[in-house]
Amino acid sequence: MSITRPIGFRAAATTAGIKPSGKSDLALIVCDPAPPAGGGASAGGGAPIVSRHSAAAVFTRNAVVGAPVEIGREWRANSMRGKAGLRAILVNAGCSNAATGEPGVEDARTTMRAVAEHLRCGPDEVMPSSTGVIGHRLPVDKITAAVPGLVKALARGEEADEAAAQAIMTTDLAPKSAHRELEMHGHVVHLGAIAKGSGMIAPRLDAAGPQATMLAFVTTDAAISTRALQHAIEDASRESFDRISVDAHPSCSDTLLVLASGGAPIRTIHEGDPEFFVFRAALTSICQELATKVVRDGEGVTRTFRVEVRGAADSASAERMARAVVDSPLVKCAIHGKDPNWGRIVTAAGNAGVRFDPSEASLSIGGVEVYRAGVPTGVGKTDQKLIAAMNADPVECVLSVGYGQGRAWMLGCDLSAEYVKINAEYTT
Amino acid sequence: MSITRPIGFRAAATTAGIKPSGKSDLALIVCDPAPPAGGGASAGGGAPIVSRHSAAAVFTRNAVVGAPVEIGREWRANSMRGKAGLRAILVNAGCSNAATGEPGVEDARTTMRAVAEHLRCGPDEVMPSSTGVIGHRLPVDKITAAVPGLVKALARGEEADEAAAQAIMTTDLAPKSAHRELEMHGHVVHLGAIAKGSGMIAPRLDAAGPQATMLAFVTTDAAISTRALQHAIEDASRESFDRISVDAHPSCSDTLLVLASGGAPIRTIHEGDPEFFVFRAALTSICQELATKVVRDGEGVTRTFRVEVRGAADSASAERMARAVVDSPLVKCAIHGKDPNWGRIVTAAGNAGVRFDPSEASLSIGGVEVYRAGVPTGVGKTDQKLIAAMNADPVECVLSVGYGQGRAWMLGCDLSAEYVKINAEYTT
Repeated sequence: MSITRPIGFRAAATTAGIKPSGKSDLALIVCDPAPPAGGGASAGGGAPIVSRHSAAAVFTRNAVVGAPVEIGREWRANSMRGKAGLRAILVNAGCSNAATGEPGVEDARTTMRAVAEHLRCGPDEVMPSSTGVIGHRLPVDKITAAVPGLVKALARGEEADEAAAQAIMTTDLAPKSAHRELEMHGHVVHLGAIAKGSGMIAPRLDAAGPQATMLAFVTTDAAISTRALQHAIEDASRESFDRISVDAHPSCSDTLLVLASGGAPIRTIHEGDPEFFVFRAALTSICQELATKVVRDGEGVTRTFRVEVRGAADSASAERMARAVVDSPLVKCAIHGKDPNWGRIVTAAGNAGVRFDPSEASLSIGGVEVYRAGVPTGVGKTDQKLIAAMNADPVECVLSVGYGQGRAWMLGCDLSAEYVKINAEYTT
Repeated sequence: MSITRPIGFRAAATTAGIKPSGKSDLALIVCDPAPPAGGGASAGGGAPIVSRHSAAAVFTRNAVVGAPVEIGREWRANSMRGKAGLRAILVNAGCSNAATGEPGVEDARTTMRAVAEHLRCGPDEVMPSSTGVIGHRLPVDKITAAVPGLVKALARGEEADEAAAQAIMTTDLAPKSAHRELEMHGHVVHLGAIAKGSGMIAPRLDAAGPQATMLAFVTTDAAISTRALQHAIEDASRESFDRISVDAHPSCSDTLLVLASGGAPIRTIHEGDPEFFVFRAALTSICQELATKVVRDGEGVTRTFRVEVRGAADSASAERMARAVVDSPLVKCAIHGKDPNWGRIVTAAGNAGVRFDPSEASLSIGGVEVYRAGVPTGVGKTDQKLIAAMNADPVECVLSVGYGQGRAWMLGCDLSAEYVKINAEYTT
């Protein structure tokens, strides 16, 4: 189980007819109202039920964003001011509702109202999320027609989780899900998550929004303040989705969203609490698992590789170098061909526009040093350990530039003829 | 004819045995001493012959550079202080002499001495230039053994030009050359040039140096001061080689070098002279022709495309957007598949990290507006004019972002399965 493993969540998926393939394309994830912890002022009495829900999100940094991201950014601003809750996420694949202007925003709002009506919540408590081709209007009628059945089908369990993970796929070959359990004060807290890739993947998420194609949804029954959850998801995304690149092209819809039900009988976590760090570590870990799965299932990918840059002036410089390496088509082709072409790796880093003195640099692949102080070490393509390193997945590259404390890593993938085939034949 | 068309130049090429393929791999371009203009203090008398030679160059901005670029940068610094001349360029393909450390520099100097000895000039008047695999020592013995024959074979004419253009090729499918003639004060001035590509091509040249893979050599019989020539070549490269990208990976050896013999009977051109602008325009034009040829012959290229961004805050912002578009693997695949996928183009520009408001932007392909004010215009894939535009070479994309005066263009190429094949099988 994944997203419905935490207490308080149900999910469902269906075929609304958005994907030309006829595969399932619409998923709904719902966080049900939970009684306050300790069974406090719950039933009867007319006292308001204190909600322990919270939600947080990061979106693409692309200047061009889909309608759902516009809505999501607005929601987040309200949420951070304590003026918005979140009950449900309605995700469709097959149409990204991006580059659709104001009518696209209206389309999304129509679907939000349809869900709200059947869930008996406010329309603003429903988050739309879309992935697929850009520039086409959302088939609103198909979606609103599917909503009643979707709400009726809401359920917990493996089947619902799998169905949701399947429905949000586009060019993904496999559904992606993960879960974590952690203990807090003797109680079990669950985290579940689903995600999709697999092209236009280089999410650079920030507290202001990604688009089309990396979507990830995390559920948890932890009780955590909105502010703490927002900071936890920003930190987690920086160490996971921000660290991957399939094709260096951040989408206009990249979204990472986390919903907390507060269903676990624990005290609400606030920033600075010891529990915050435990929760954030689990959140980071589940995001890393999904990010890795997204790269492995990237379009045409046969092998992944990790580049760690050490000793840069600062982590931003290290990241620029690592990103330049994983995004170099020449390096990606070399990884595809299992060619330990350190020259391409070093020159890619040399293009990052940050201080880099080759005479102080060294590069190892799978623990085999192939380049040191500006020259090759002489370990050749016939070295057995190097051959094994190039056949590993991920191939592990460590570039030490030797003058500072800045470090960063990126997880990338090879470039194959299959990637070209997929993307030359993809349709607008 | 190309490089030996201007008065004062000879060239030759041979097979030194550097390329495993056994093809020709070593070229020599020589600028012979010319008598001063107007037949002044020339023969007899013991008076020093006033040289009218000048030379200038721009090299890769990559932090990692080959030994020849190190030597070239030093030469240029001396040349700009009036302390260095240039008589010859010795170019080899098959080995880039990059990432070879101090021994690599010594190797290059050995070859310079060999040429100098046979030309009876100073070793520092010989410029080495290398392209090919990175991290391997130069086969110095093979090169020095070939030098005497090369010097003897120096000649003017079509055959010599073609042989030189052939010898500097690596993965190029065709040799690249160009020539121009212009009139100054009733005299004809010639420019000739050869260049090679074709992978690791995104030269971003500056007055401080490029590597491996874009090499271009221009000869002219204009008489022009060193300073004027340096400024002319910097301006010309910004409007030509800096505007192309095959795979977004500037090499460690990119070099553009111009040699002026002063052989034409004209007054020496200085910056600010009306003739300077005429000369610079011709130099820019010849560089643009070669740059276009380099992209067309880029690895695996079947079609090129030009992206012009208009209306940005400044030309640097416009360039960042244009570069983001031509370097997006998704856009490149769409061009390959003749798919007018404006969504990829617009989102690529949206990733450039500069101000970009989709609601103010429009995009046309081959004159067909496909996107306006944040939404598609509805012109579809079946539109005959759009089909014709996608079949053109180059495909012409104009992105208007609508708020400023900044403009820039970039010439890119499609990404094909053939590119992957070439670069997955290329050897270190």
